[in-house]
Amino acid sequence: MIEMIVSLQSGETKIKFERFSPGEGDIVVTDSNLSGTLQEHNPIVVPAGEASKNLRCYEDILNQLAAKGAKRKTNLVAIGGGVIGDLAGFVAATYMRGIPLTQVPTTLLAMVDSSVGGKVGVDTDHGKNLVGAFYPAREVFVDVEWLKTLPKRQWKCGMAEVIKYGFIMDSDLVNHLDSAPLLNTEDSRVEETISRCIQHKKQVVEADEFETTGYRAILNFGHTVGHAIEKLTHYETYTHGEAIAIGMAVEAKIGEKLGICASGLSEKVIHSLKVHGLPTDSETIQDVENIIQSMRGDKKSVRGELSMSLLSDVGSCKLVHDIPEAAVREVLSEY
Amino acid sequence: MIEMIVSLQSGETKIKFERFSPGEGDIVVTDSNLSGTLQEHNPIVVPAGEASKNLRCYEDILNQLAAKGAKRKTNLVAIGGGVIGDLAGFVAATYMRGIPLTQVPTTLLAMVDSSVGGKVGVDTDHGKNLVGAFYPAREVFVDVEWLKTLPKRQWKCGMAEVIKYGFIMDSDLVNHLDSAPLLNTEDSRVEETISRCIQHKKQVVEADEFETTGYRAILNFGHTVGHAIEKLTHYETYTHGEAIAIGMAVEAKIGEKLGICASGLSEKVIHSLKVHGLPTDSETIQDVENIIQSMRGDKKSVRGELSMSLLSDVGSCKLVHDIPEAAVREVLSEY
Repeated sequence: MIEMIVSLQSGETKIKFERFSPGEGDIVVTDSNLSGTLQEHNPIVVPAGEASKNLRCYEDILNQLAAKGAKRKTNLVAIGGGVIGDLAGFVAATYMRGIPLTQVPTTLLAMVDSSVGGKVGVDTDHGKNLVGAFYPAREVFVDVEWLKTLPKRQWKCGMAEVIKYGFIMDSDLVNHLDSAPLLNTEDSRVEETISRCIQHKKQVVEADEFETTGYRAILNFGHTVGHAIEKLTHYETYTHGEAIAIGMAVEAKIGEKLGICASGLSEKVIHSLKVHGLPTDSETIQDVENIIQSMRGDKKSVRGELSMSLLSDVGSCKLVHDIPEAAVREVLSEY
Repeated sequence: MIEMIVSLQSGETKIKFERFSPGEGDIVVTDSNLSGTLQEHNPIVVPAGEASKNLRCYEDILNQLAAKGAKRKTNLVAIGGGVIGDLAGFVAATYMRGIPLTQVPTTLLAMVDSSVGGKVGVDTDHGKNLVGAFYPAREVFVDVEWLKTLPKRQWKCGMAEVIKYGFIMDSDLVNHLDSAPLLNTEDSRVEETISRCIQHKKQVVEADEFETTGYRAILNFGHTVGHAIEKLTHYETYTHGEAIAIGMAVEAKIGEKLGICASGLSEKVIHSLKVHGLPTDSETIQDVENIIQSMRGDKKSVRGELSMSLLSDVGSCKLVHDIPEAAVREVLSEY
């Protein structure tokens, strides 16, 4: 598998499709699901799950790093899913004002999305990823072997992001997955699909690292509604992928309502999600006022107006500002 | 007064020698000493003092920002001394992964040092500035009017840093201050002196923003021992300036002991500090083992060895690694 280099203003990331072995001077951070198999590396361990992505665990890791005598040249190795990557990445970004970071994503979601592009951070009571930094890993080691032990639900969670790449920028990928769904890690197309998604992410983040032009925001398709659903269900009911699957379905409908895409596109989105076993509906959507309020607090929003990345076609997407609340309310109520 | 521009990789800072007036969309962060006079701006207020530079106050400001509806384009204005600048600066660096920052330093120390160069952060139990970021303010407003109400002790605290610039890179400044000490804000040379110090800082940080070459470390003269003293006295006994004044005197002696400078230089340092009413000795220095242990944990240290920025002459300084512990022990014991 060809090594890739993602060149960002805040640093360069080498993506390697191989197994990582921690070396001397590395400090490993992982979660309680993986710590057993990583015992020999004496890792810093946080409880598994999104609930750990907070300032308490952040501080706890900082203190453990200091207690282990970590210095500016210490390499912090995040082994785990998106929670570990985001949390440990934010620690690396800020410990002594920044130490080297290696990402070893162990979930499909982290491989295709969170380990690349430099976004790190934690959640607060006021929102998801409300605190963080742009801090690219120096190296990302993608090894599909990790996926073999991944629970089915986590696999599907990653597939939601894979499908997202298809709808926002790769219609061939959508057609390909519709005709032959990618249902498990044994499929020989897994590594190639991951590589293809990382190439898409590379292209987007290199063009708009700091989300200044609105282009990077296309990666947020499904996330405005998805984040609202996650927030209202206290990050407990749905995996991130499930929430953004529902979000993509709803946002496709909003795009249709606004005439940004042809009617019928939302059915295509829903079809692709369903064949991969992902949800496309939730009773939380009926909590219309709270969904809208949460959307106004989204980071893409400039002055509390509604902003979303919406599909214009299969394989194309754009950031839309000043979306009329009435249209959103209507879609949510009728959903 | 000529406007200056400090060009760093992480951003450009405009230094303006004028009064700042908060505008619409600005959110002010200040401390309890200044909040009375800033009431009209409805500021976020933290208790005055170094003890506020911690993760608790950091989180508190983040939450208040979110509660006020701050977005990515909200300009955070830090009005206060170094504690407010560093603390609010770290909030600006990380809130929604970074929002615009304006620094309005109100102390001499903050004007000549902390408001310029992008270093922001907070202290933890494991050390001073152990967590933070490189995040330059977009604008710094230097207005000497603020200094008029500064307590004498805070004025002297800033003078310690002014004297530091002299010894590390400006022998003319040392000679000038020795012949005519700068003892209070009424002196007509204040603004010119501040501007001269900022020019020195600009030159250093533009050449080595991220402390990769060791050059920026010259600004740390006096700080290795100074930070150890602050830490061992729980940041309560001395102001930062007093601690680094003592640190400069001790480190000058260490330089002499190592033959890095001619003998007699430490007496010149002590003289300049004394004429400005600064301390040059502390009984904490006799806590030799703890001072040395604390120095090994300094961020300049790579693998726990002793590193310090030491004067080679009046007006010149360099980062020295692998300093023999015996020499340091001897200087501390004999001090």
